[in-house]
Amino acid sequence: MAADEIKAKAKTAKKADPYAASVDPATQQMIIKAHNDEVETIFDRALTLKPCNIGEQGTCCKNCSQGPCRLPLPKKGIEGKDTRMGLCGATPETIAARNFIRMVAGGAAAHSDHGRGVAETFLAAARKETDDYTIKDTEKLLEVAKYCNVPTSVMVEGEDGQKVQEDRDIYDIATDVGELALAQWGQQEGEVVPVLQAPEARIQLWRDLDVMPRGIDREIVEIMHRTHMGVDQDYRNLIKQGSRAAIADGWGGSMLATDLQDILFGTPYPVQGEINLGVMKEDHVNVIVHGHEPLLSEMIVVASQDPELLKLAEEKGAKGIVLAGMCCTANEILMRHGLPIAGNYLQQELAIVTGAVDAMVVDVQCIMESVANVAMCYHTKLITTNPRAMIESGETIHIEFDEHSALEDAKKIVRTAIENFPNRRAQPIIPNEKEQMVVGFSQEAVKYHLGGTFRGSYVPLNDNIINGRIRGIAGVVGCNNARTTHDEGHLIVVKELLKNDVIVLTTGCNAMACGKAGLLTPEAAKVYCGAGLAEVCETVGIPPVLHMGSCVDNSRILLAASEVVKAGGLGKDISDLPVAGSAPEWMSEKAISIGHYFVVSGVYTVFGVGLPVTGAPRFQKYLFEELEDIYGGMWDLEVDPYEHARKMIQHIDKKRKALGLDKGKERVLVDMAARRELDAA
Amino acid sequence: MAADEIKAKAKTAKKADPYAASVDPATQQMIIKAHNDEVETIFDRALTLKPCNIGEQGTCCKNCSQGPCRLPLPKKGIEGKDTRMGLCGATPETIAARNFIRMVAGGAAAHSDHGRGVAETFLAAARKETDDYTIKDTEKLLEVAKYCNVPTSVMVEGEDGQKVQEDRDIYDIATDVGELALAQWGQQEGEVVPVLQAPEARIQLWRDLDVMPRGIDREIVEIMHRTHMGVDQDYRNLIKQGSRAAIADGWGGSMLATDLQDILFGTPYPVQGEINLGVMKEDHVNVIVHGHEPLLSEMIVVASQDPELLKLAEEKGAKGIVLAGMCCTANEILMRHGLPIAGNYLQQELAIVTGAVDAMVVDVQCIMESVANVAMCYHTKLITTNPRAMIESGETIHIEFDEHSALEDAKKIVRTAIENFPNRRAQPIIPNEKEQMVVGFSQEAVKYHLGGTFRGSYVPLNDNIINGRIRGIAGVVGCNNARTTHDEGHLIVVKELLKNDVIVLTTGCNAMACGKAGLLTPEAAKVYCGAGLAEVCETVGIPPVLHMGSCVDNSRILLAASEVVKAGGLGKDISDLPVAGSAPEWMSEKAISIGHYFVVSGVYTVFGVGLPVTGAPRFQKYLFEELEDIYGGMWDLEVDPYEHARKMIQHIDKKRKALGLDKGKERVLVDMAARRELDAA
Repeated sequence: MAADEIKAKAKTAKKADPYAASVDPATQQMIIKAHNDEVETIFDRALTLKPCNIGEQGTCCKNCSQGPCRLPLPKKGIEGKDTRMGLCGATPETIAARNFIRMVAGGAAAHSDHGRGVAETFLAAARKETDDYTIKDTEKLLEVAKYCNVPTSVMVEGEDGQKVQEDRDIYDIATDVGELALAQWGQQEGEVVPVLQAPEARIQLWRDLDVMPRGIDREIVEIMHRTHMGVDQDYRNLIKQGSRAAIADGWGGSMLATDLQDILFGTPYPVQGEINLGVMKEDHVNVIVHGHEPLLSEMIVVASQDPELLKLAEEKGAKGIVLAGMCCTANEILMRHGLPIAGNYLQQELAIVTGAVDAMVVDVQCIMESVANVAMCYHTKLITTNPRAMIESGETIHIEFDEHSALEDAKKIVRTAIENFPNRRAQPIIPNEKEQMVVGFSQEAVKYHLGGTFRGSYVPLNDNIINGRIRGIAGVVGCNNARTTHDEGHLIVVKELLKNDVIVLTTGCNAMACGKAGLLTPEAAKVYCGAGLAEVCETVGIPPVLHMGSCVDNSRILLAASEVVKAGGLGKDISDLPVAGSAPEWMSEKAISIGHYFVVSGVYTVFGVGLPVTGAPRFQKYLFEELEDIYGGMWDLEVDPYEHARKMIQHIDKKRKALGLDKGKERVLVDMAARRELDAA
Repeated sequence: MAADEIKAKAKTAKKADPYAASVDPATQQMIIKAHNDEVETIFDRALTLKPCNIGEQGTCCKNCSQGPCRLPLPKKGIEGKDTRMGLCGATPETIAARNFIRMVAGGAAAHSDHGRGVAETFLAAARKETDDYTIKDTEKLLEVAKYCNVPTSVMVEGEDGQKVQEDRDIYDIATDVGELALAQWGQQEGEVVPVLQAPEARIQLWRDLDVMPRGIDREIVEIMHRTHMGVDQDYRNLIKQGSRAAIADGWGGSMLATDLQDILFGTPYPVQGEINLGVMKEDHVNVIVHGHEPLLSEMIVVASQDPELLKLAEEKGAKGIVLAGMCCTANEILMRHGLPIAGNYLQQELAIVTGAVDAMVVDVQCIMESVANVAMCYHTKLITTNPRAMIESGETIHIEFDEHSALEDAKKIVRTAIENFPNRRAQPIIPNEKEQMVVGFSQEAVKYHLGGTFRGSYVPLNDNIINGRIRGIAGVVGCNNARTTHDEGHLIVVKELLKNDVIVLTTGCNAMACGKAGLLTPEAAKVYCGAGLAEVCETVGIPPVLHMGSCVDNSRILLAASEVVKAGGLGKDISDLPVAGSAPEWMSEKAISIGHYFVVSGVYTVFGVGLPVTGAPRFQKYLFEELEDIYGGMWDLEVDPYEHARKMIQHIDKKRKALGLDKGKERVLVDMAARRELDAA
């Protein structure tokens, strides 16, 4: 479609109520501008295009061409026995479970393929095949080498003929780590190595249940086989394979992505940043980097500071270059460079609607095809960069990004943006909204911060959980979803948790929603938290919501949970901890994979919006109740955000009770003897 | 559900017209018996459960939870520009292409995971870790070793100090082959080795197009990533990845499955067999082996001939044991042992309806969950054997089959059947229908047969194509589909082709349809073929339809096509040959993967029933027309079987014309000089 056709369509389309669409003022303002500009956005389409109600129930099967077979729940509910079946006899349970683990496959593939790309670039850097990437964080490299069983020193003969220990060259270690990491994707038997960082009890459970992943790709492919027509037709067995693949994602592919990115680009430590559409500047060249892989954005960071390009920008009449992130790419460059975030998932079209974006650069995942259409209605150049992700719509430009010529490619991209600066069609309107935030709480940073200067440790966190100042820990993560009011669910859930002394770990679009609402500041503790949590945050000087990164970085939450277990006093496994997970506005298959690896890691995990399981009651019961007996964690669905938070708190209290922490909350210091006693309980 | 609940449901359900449901008399008779017995089958369900008309068009997207978004074609067709888009802006083309290559992923995963299992067992046999499997076909092993670049001899120092060439131990060679084979799944870069058996021109084309697969699993996983929300949104780029994965299937995973099975169990050579429900015997224990992997069925063949078990059968009042196959398992044991076939995909419930099946043993793929319900209505034990494929419905028994205790497991399974013999509830009714057939035309067997005693070669075939006795070659394959009359499409398409002097290569459920109709006999040549083809078949003594095996054995068709190219005189690539592919009654995702690797190998390929592409006109045009310019092969859809065959013949004639073979059909012997001239043309 051409721009005039897009506008003609928008003219007659239903218009979203901006105040029902989002709780974010910048977003509301830009929805109104889009309407004035005759540009349709996802908020408008959500009014007209209703979701398929059978697909929403999870009971539409299109895995063979005898279908699609659809088995909705009868309006009156099931009377007597549930006799529904597809043409082949597949029950609603079989169908919903197949669909569910195919979502795990999609999500795990997305995260893991991202990780694979990082591993390839990492190896190129380790082998010095590229000048653009180097080993930056050697401390993290040594940590990772440890769990990879890569030796960091060798025995050599000293001058006196005695054997002495000598440190290995950093790049030699990195090469070994990179090779081992990359091998995890193709591995056919054995166990995926990073999984062994889970608590011992958890590893033993997974071995007993036969869900230890053999290799990352193999588990995803086996899902595709098992969900093929006429293969696995037992929802419990299907979920078993889904569990294996989800573990391969969270504790494998995602974890390697995070770890190797940290080594290449630096492990995040707290840094200040800004967020919302207001970070763009009218008189600057504005470049939005949108997507997921920091391989690209890290180089664009460098390119945007290039003196030659800055000079070119000036020549074109701009006062400088603003590089802002969107979606998880934003989280990556924010955490490591303090660069601003323009917005989360549902704001991607709206950034362009400002009229101030000279180029939007995208790589993979969560990029709406419609940005191509919106870009055509303004002057924005939409640039795809990844061979796995092209866009046919609009006038999209493809500038392929290759890790071997990374900086050169990045400069070409930034140059394209600069040269487009003079082409703006009208005075941009950039919302004023932008918020300050403190971000970058890797599990290493949390350890350092909580432990104080003298001993980096999770012990003080555990102590504060034991003494009741902190009631528990919640991981609140996930996407935006145009079927629900933008950011509203995120913010209500988080605020309810804070009020109840639950500290929140966040990633992805939830992190950005929190950032825009001012929750990622130490000052938020006083405003939003219960007295106990506020006291801890104020003492330590941290925000009550800890920004841990992008969606692959949910692996950091897993490791933080493992650290809490290891610090002692709160049981022997993640499932013993007073923790809960949540994705109030989930949208992507990645969220299902994340949710499932949280669950099988022992975490009670609640999703908002809806889950495609409601049409298969026995399967739903399996996920929501029976999994708890197997993994100690289970799924739940709660659309109402207040009730959503309440259920999480209820679960946290249940775990506190099981640990004997419900009997009064005296603020006592727990010594080692007392901790051992608790462990033994 | 319990048996009485199943029967209660069947009582009130609509009943299929047996004569509209199938053209096979045995099938018709058993549908009637099922009605009398108050047992519902897939034929009945097909009346009530209509397919989703939007899913059928390929434009239902459920890859994120903002949907499912559905974009049907407007009833009046597209007026003006096509402005349909999903919530994210995904066009009908993006959605249909995503769905299409996810089908490729499902199909390739099924075939390849089957191949992986074979490779694992092969390696266990090569390493002598199991007594139950051995290296049977050493000639084939040496062939495979050649394309795997595994040395078959070594230089050793002779007694006189001279270096001499010495043959390596067969099991050492097999170990190297097995290791290389298994590595193809996990390989991360380079090229999947067996692909290099394609014609040179084709390999060069694939390299130029950047679709050479790097590793089998990686390509499947990358499909899952690219089809994730917001990644690849260009149908051409999506199809590119689909092509890479399909090549990895047909020329990789499937081909390795076939080759390693041949080495373990013997390369098929022509053998006589029987087919249809009439192969079962009332006074015998009847065991049906249903599914796909010969690893299981080969051992059950051995177990069913065990003197102790035969004695037990006698003690239980049976005169012996009938072991019959169903679906592709049937093809495997038929081709190698001449054991009978009970029927194809749509007959699986009906075999049980005879009341004579004492056990149905299943492994993976194409097993309808409803067999569990039907089994409960009779005395049949349904036994699952594979950890990847359990069945929750009915009273299914799971007896896990492990390659390290294969024969023992197989005996346990056969014993279960024997012990169930006395439990028959009523006098069985077994249809009389059974047909004789000659099967087992591996590409090696074809070479031998066509070349005559003196020189195994495809040259005589080429000569007969060049001189016009044979007009061309068709590969007609694929499933049954309850949405169309059972076997009717298969038989009309094949008979039309034969009448027009097109020789047919067949696999899977098409092979069985042909077998039941008597087309797999040398005598069929006279009855069904045009004069030219009849003459060739009668001279050589082969049926006009050559049964090449199961659905992984479509790789044999690829190799046969490559042999024809290599034999010379018909161009330089598969796309030059007067050949066409067809799946008149396709149903499974495997068929889409097969169809797509046929297409990208250069074959015009027509599917019946329907293809989920019609809702995305530009995508459909890409598959049906534009792919021809890229790969020389393209997709087509034709529901009417006569027109279906006509289109194939038309394409064959187009290719004959391009080769200059349309100018009179004098029966001249083409010598090498003339052949070179044709090649140069």
